[in-house]
Parts: sequence; C-alpha cells; structure tokens
Amino acid sequence: MDLQNYVENLTSEARNSSLDLAVARSEIKNTVLSKMASNLRMCSEELKEANQKDLAEGNKNGLSDAMLDRLELTDSRIEDMAKSVDDIAELKDPVGGVIDGWVLPNGLRLTKRRVPLGVVCIIYESRPNVTADAAALCVKSGNAVILRGGKEAIHSNTAIYRQLKKAFNDTDLPPNCVQLVETTDRAAVPPLLTAEKDVDVIIPRGGKGLIKHVMETATIPVVKHYDGVCHTYVDERCNLDMALEICENAKCQRPGVCNAMETLLVHKNIAGDFLPMMKDVYDKKGVELRGCPIALKVLSDINSASEDDWYEEYLDLILAVRVVNGVDEAVEHINRYGSGHSDAIVTDDLKAAETFQNAVDSATVYVNASTRFTDGGEFGLGAEIGISTNKLHARGPMALEELTTYKWLVNGEGQIR
Amino acid sequence: MDLQNYVENLTSEARNSSLDLAVARSEIKNTVLSKMASNLRMCSEELKEANQKDLAEGNKNGLSDAMLDRLELTDSRIEDMAKSVDDIAELKDPVGGVIDGWVLPNGLRLTKRRVPLGVVCIIYESRPNVTADAAALCVKSGNAVILRGGKEAIHSNTAIYRQLKKAFNDTDLPPNCVQLVETTDRAAVPPLLTAEKDVDVIIPRGGKGLIKHVMETATIPVVKHYDGVCHTYVDERCNLDMALEICENAKCQRPGVCNAMETLLVHKNIAGDFLPMMKDVYDKKGVELRGCPIALKVLSDINSASEDDWYEEYLDLILAVRVVNGVDEAVEHINRYGSGHSDAIVTDDLKAAETFQNAVDSATVYVNASTRFTDGGEFGLGAEIGISTNKLHARGPMALEELTTYKWLVNGEGQIR
Repeated sequence: MDLQNYVENLTSEARNSSLDLAVARSEIKNTVLSKMASNLRMCSEELKEANQKDLAEGNKNGLSDAMLDRLELTDSRIEDMAKSVDDIAELKDPVGGVIDGWVLPNGLRLTKRRVPLGVVCIIYESRPNVTADAAALCVKSGNAVILRGGKEAIHSNTAIYRQLKKAFNDTDLPPNCVQLVETTDRAAVPPLLTAEKDVDVIIPRGGKGLIKHVMETATIPVVKHYDGVCHTYVDERCNLDMALEICENAKCQRPGVCNAMETLLVHKNIAGDFLPMMKDVYDKKGVELRGCPIALKVLSDINSASEDDWYEEYLDLILAVRVVNGVDEAVEHINRYGSGHSDAIVTDDLKAAETFQNAVDSATVYVNASTRFTDGGEFGLGAEIGISTNKLHARGPMALEELTTYKWLVNGEGQIR
Repeated sequence: MDLQNYVENLTSEARNSSLDLAVARSEIKNTVLSKMASNLRMCSEELKEANQKDLAEGNKNGLSDAMLDRLELTDSRIEDMAKSVDDIAELKDPVGGVIDGWVLPNGLRLTKRRVPLGVVCIIYESRPNVTADAAALCVKSGNAVILRGGKEAIHSNTAIYRQLKKAFNDTDLPPNCVQLVETTDRAAVPPLLTAEKDVDVIIPRGGKGLIKHVMETATIPVVKHYDGVCHTYVDERCNLDMALEICENAKCQRPGVCNAMETLLVHKNIAGDFLPMMKDVYDKKGVELRGCPIALKVLSDINSASEDDWYEEYLDLILAVRVVNGVDEAVEHINRYGSGHSDAIVTDDLKAAETFQNAVDSATVYVNASTRFTDGGEFGLGAEIGISTNKLHARGPMALEELTTYKWLVNGEGQIR
C-alpha cells in the first residue's frame, strides 16, 4: 500500500465529509452519537476480544503494569465510554452560536457566527476510550475527524472505530466524518501533519516526544497538550490548615495527571512552621521531597533539589520544595520554570492574591484552591478533548466551543467602498 | 557576530520585557504611543534621508516602480504613520476585559480574563509604515514585539525603529518591549521561528514564498496572512444594477489587495444578459477577462480560463469568469478553488442567500455587498495587524483583541477535589 496515497485519500475524504457535517442539524448529529453509544454497549464482547489481543502483545512487548492497566477494556470501562458519548450528545451544540454582531454606519449588518473548524486530526497514545471520546466531540462540534491512535491499542481502537462507523448507516451524514488511520506505520504521520489543504488543526495528546515531533513536523496549526509543571505557593499570611489540605490534594489526589502539583513554594517566614507539618502529611502518603538549600535546613532528612528538578513534571509522588522571599519571587520562579498550565497561591492577603493572579503567566491561576480543578468537566464546560498549553485559540480546558472557529457574515443592500 | 546568540538575546529580552508590559496600565502604554507618534513627526527629515538610501539601493537592484512607490516615505506618509499610532492610542485597551465568568456549585469563582499573548514576532516585507503600526498595536495590546522587516527597507525601518525606541525613555516600561532585527541576514529567521520558549506567535505578512517558508520552519504557532482568492457570485434573481456596481467595486477599486475579487461566478440563466453589460464596465476600466467555455460563448472576444486561473490571485486587473448552474455549484467552486478569505453573493432570493452564507467556508461571507469591506477599520475593529486566513485563533481582520489570549482566574476558600 502506498502510504502517501492512503493518507491523501483519508484527508480528502475528511474534507469532503466535513462540508456536509458542518451544516448538519444538531438532531442528526445527536442521533449518530446515540447510535455510537448503543453500538459500543451492544458489542462489548467484540471490543474485549480485540482488547485481549492488544493486552497479549503488550505483555509480550514488556509494557509496564500501569500501561497495561490504562490499555485494558473492562465491562465497566466500556459502559463509561458509551455513557461519555451519550453525555456529549446531551451537551449544547456550539455551532451557529452568535459571538458578536453590530450594524456599521453604512448599514452593513455584521454577525460573528460560530462554525466548525472543519477537519481535526487527533494523534494520541494508549487509552482506547479516547477513540470514542474524540470522535464524539468532533461530530458534535461539526468537525470531521481523523484519529491516529497508538500502536499498542490498534486492535481495540479498530474495534471501537467499527462501532462508531456503523452509527452513520441510514443517516444523511457521510461515514467518513470519522476515520481511523488503520496502519501503525509511523510513516503515515508526516503526510498527515503536512496536509494543509485538507486538515485544519492537529491535536496531539501524549508524551513529550510525540508532541515535540508533531510541533517540528506540522505545517498545520497545532493545539498542543504539553506538560503541567504546576506550582502551589504558600504565602506568609494564610490559613495553614487550608494550605495543608490544598497541598495534599494538589500533589496526592492523582499524581499522574497534568494538573497535579510538581513544585511547592513556601514563604520564608512560615517555612519553619509549615514545612514540618506538611512533611508529616506527605510522609503518610509516601511523597518524596526534594528541597532547596533553605528547605533542607528546615527538613534535614530530605534530598536536595537540582536545577533540573524545578523544570520536572514528575507525574509521581515526588515534589520539589523551595523557600522564597515572597510573592514576587514565587511569581518569578513560576514564570521561569513553570509550563503555564495551572498554579495556585494560598493566602489571606489581598495584595498578594492580586499580584499573583495578574503576574503569573499561566492558563489557570488559582487563589485558595487546588490546581486539580483544571478540567473541562470541573469547570462546567462539559467533556474536553484535552487541556491546551497553547496560548493561541484555546488555553486551558479545550471543550466543544474550542473545537469551533467563527465566520463573519456581512449583509447589505448593495454597499460598495 | 554570532547570529544564533544575537537572536537568542533578542527573544529572551522580549520575554523579560513582556512580563512588565503585560501588567502595565493603559495610561502608561498610551503615553509611550503618543511619544512614538510625536518622535516620528519631529524626525521626518531623518526618516526621509534613511529612506533615500533604500530607494537608491532599490533603484540599483531593479525594484519595480510599484515596489519603489510602496517603499517611499513622503511627508504625508510620515504624517499618516504618526496619525495611525495616535489612533491606536485612542482605541480601547483589550487587556483585562472579562470574556466570561461564573460560579461553580462548589463555590469556586471562575473568570475568563483577556491577557496579552506575550511576545509577538512579525515578519514582513516592503512598506516601512508596518514597522510603526505593528509596534504600536503590540504595545497597546501589552505584547512585546520583535520586528523583522524586508531587506529593501532596512534603512527606513531602522530609522523608524530608533524613534519608536526613544519613546520608552523616562517611562517605566523596558525599551526592549519593541525590538527590530537589525541585520538583513536571512539566517536570522530560522532561530526566530523556533524560539518556542520565548516567542508566542509568529505573524508573517508578505508574499506566498515568505509565508510558506514560515509555516514549514516554525515550531511556534503561526497566524498566517495568506492569499485572497475572492469570489462574487451573481445569482439568477438579483438586481442587475447592484450586481454591476458590486462587481466593478470588488474588482477595480483597488485590485492589488487581498480582498479584491479574483473570480466572477454567474448564474447560467442571466449570463446572457449580465455578462455583456459587465464586460462594458470592465472594458472601460481595462480589466482582462478569462472565461469558462460557456462564458466564451456569451463573450466571444475574451481569452479562455485554464484550470490554474481558478486558483489564481491576480492582484491585478484580470478576472476569471465562470458560468454556473446555481448557488450549489457556486458554493462548490468557492470551497474548492477559493482561499477562504472573502466571498459574496448578489441575490434577491432568501434561500440562495442563506445557503451561500451557511455553506461557503470562508472567513467573511457577504450578501449584496462588495468583498472590499473585509478590513479591521471597515468592520469597526480599529487598526488591524492583517487579515488572518487561519481558522484557529483569529479569522479575518486581526485587530487588538486578536493580539490577546485569556487566562482563567479561579478564586476559592480552600476547595479541593
């Protein structure tokens, strides 16, 4: 098979289908989504069978237990996947919404109307539920989608994809609104990343290596979902119990995700009181601390942090700890070492809170709350395709609205310049 | 001079300055802008002297008369440039505006607030006034800017830049909020396009070659200002006088710009009446027509259009003409050959107007008006940095708001997940 031709065929089919999908009514899109969900439920045995092949190969290839766990499809995970597609059908359709509009002095009527992006290409790793989620979010927002999953999940993804595809039977929508790259050949990726004519946006979800490769190769706009080096700064004037709770939650509630805390910053005037109490909490949870020289003076039995630790996204029960002179130094540290994802201050001081929220250049900046809330569902936006670390187009949780763009409609009665 | 180091120094200075500029008050930014404008006015002799060097070199290097004209700085053009900076100072500051906000069931208060992008890099050709315009738009929107102008305008750009820079004296803003790449060496461009850490967006303005190079090389988000293959479709049921006026205006009022019409589509049932009248108008203006086979039957003395003509952005008094079966075929043609910039229908038919505005996948879609209105100033948005042919982030006129992003501010009282 000629891969270049294969990909060109995928992308041009996606473009053609996208034009029909863009003008489809919500009720038609929702019908397809409901059928997707019921197909997934009805074929759970088939899905589990395909998944077994992936698990067996994963075992053979020495995937870690954590990876195998993420890969596995159980009855309850299949039900969750179907439920999530049903939930997306229930969300409000963003397409057609009017963002703004006015009448010009010359009588021209301007309307800035929300429309689908067109063709979305999602490149992801591991979890097979992304196949269903991403397809459902794209169809709901009127976008044709090209799915490129990880090699280790190819059998599961293909089986899920078949059920999604069947949902288009007996509808007015072209089935090629949703397409999966059915080869695991890596050479299929570069032609996708440069299909400017037919693909409007690339959304990579996965490890840093994947995202770096996409950014370097793509000639199409990329909305990246990069790392989360998230901070919590505990200020001098604060409720220490609240600080303990927030710092425990931000680090320990789910350490493997991008909105978990990776570095704790503490005001020098409370470090002596706060750090020993905090360490007691973390000790119980098995968190390893790595401290700056001043932190080491307070907590003599922890390891020292290297310069690299400040940049590190551990995604694990490890935490870098630094004592700072105040909010300005905390902000400087965050803007220098952080990844612009989610950062929090715990304080009772109005000026410190305002300085922190103004000056920290991150997608989400918290006062007195855990960074773990950065999530489309938690924000009340509905399901998300990911959390963007881009500044352009989408920043933070990327939900249905962020899968749209706008067009300007201008209506007149013969106006010329 | 080591170019890589030179560029790294520029970009890291820009990043550092951007953090101060992002939180600067409007009144401080406006003071700098006013000083920029008055510096430009006061030093017009110096600017013209520098410009003479560019013109002399341009003459020697065989630049076309049109290019030399675009390059030239006269007293009135310098006054226009200064006036345009003053006008930008008068615009409303987009920074800090609240886009949305709500309270979650758990009491967390969310605010989606407009903030500057950070560091903007603008790569442009020819017209030296872009140096002042782009700098003023970026400073107003709180962005540090790196300007990379064309080789043929280097003396003019450097002279303008010196006046812009002086405006930062005796202010609280770092002068490196505005920086010009002071070498014409092309090797300075790739390190700019890959300075992910320090540059947030690249805005290329110029010919297709420049933009293609930027898209292929950049690892940073690009908002491109590509070609405008704009269409006007004259429907069966329409006011023919209005159609004549609109088509004359869209093609002839300023043929060298991106929102000028390049292809005229005409309904088959009126082609016999309309095309001869239209040709009379175009003949007087010296417009060359290139027609499809059916158009050639109506207008026997015009050249035939090749497949390439449908893709062509002439930027000149040349127009491709095609007769179509109706609005659906017009839409198909536009979505296939157009560039998604600006397209118009002239019609009295409600259904045709709605079909056209729904189905044409372009940034601006007109009913009964000239495509020439696609412009930040005409839309009432104020000065623009260009007209984006991206779908992401900014689509159509890109003015002050499109030079911002947002951050989520989340305020709580100790909420955890």
